[in-house]
Amino acid sequence: MDDARDRGLTLNPKYDDHGLITAVVTHVTSGEVLMVAHMNAQALALTVETGLAHFWSRSRQSLWKKGESSGHMLGVRDIRIDCDQDAVWVLAEPAGPTCHTGARSCFFRRIGPDGLSAVDEPGVDAAH
Amino acid sequence: MDDARDRGLTLNPKYDDHGLITAVVTHVTSGEVLMVAHMNAQALALTVETGLAHFWSRSRQSLWKKGESSGHMLGVRDIRIDCDQDAVWVLAEPAGPTCHTGARSCFFRRIGPDGLSAVDEPGVDAAH
Repeated sequence: MDDARDRGLTLNPKYDDHGLITAVVTHVTSGEVLMVAHMNAQALALTVETGLAHFWSRSRQSLWKKGESSGHMLGVRDIRIDCDQDAVWVLAEPAGPTCHTGARSCFFRRIGPDGLSAVDEPGVDAAH
Repeated sequence: MDDARDRGLTLNPKYDDHGLITAVVTHVTSGEVLMVAHMNAQALALTVETGLAHFWSRSRQSLWKKGESSGHMLGVRDIRIDCDQDAVWVLAEPAGPTCHTGARSCFFRRIGPDGLSAVDEPGVDAAH
């Protein structure tokens, strides 16, 4: 345990070997988890400064402003960091479906004892 | 993009080099993000089978049944997986404060332009 990092009020993210922390985005009103991605220091700084979610794309190895091509940006309403400062929680107002599949949330499938099933909720309907 | 993994109904988690996926836990009623941790295949299977959240502790390098020592277990009400199957979302009923600091959620500090501030909400009150 690192007490200053865990309980203090100094921002001191614990980046991993790749310089990344985990970022969880939820819908500011519904509470639905929309996506999970990663941020490096630059993405975190830009997210705080601009009010629009930025990430680090591990597959493309590049900074990624969410919605840059789709227009489906994530307006940041609040941003928090966890106790060991290796994860942030972004409460966002999405401008459209968050998932590249067109679903409102990336989490559109339930895990059950017999595998996956589609979640029969508005969250999976890209039209809403 | 892996279309079968991204859109199909076969559970096929994309474990990282350490055999882990990210696990986000939210409170099933309030929607508050309680914690972010990691699961290996065994932790995921035990979580689905037992209805209690299990993780892999990277610091201790061991399987970790949340609440095993504190009693503050996380009862699983729903569990979902994201499009590329490298993250799960656990909707849980917590038996007590989730954070090791005693806070209800690990995300008890806000990131602002001038650093961190304590979140003045019931979420940081360990007594509730």
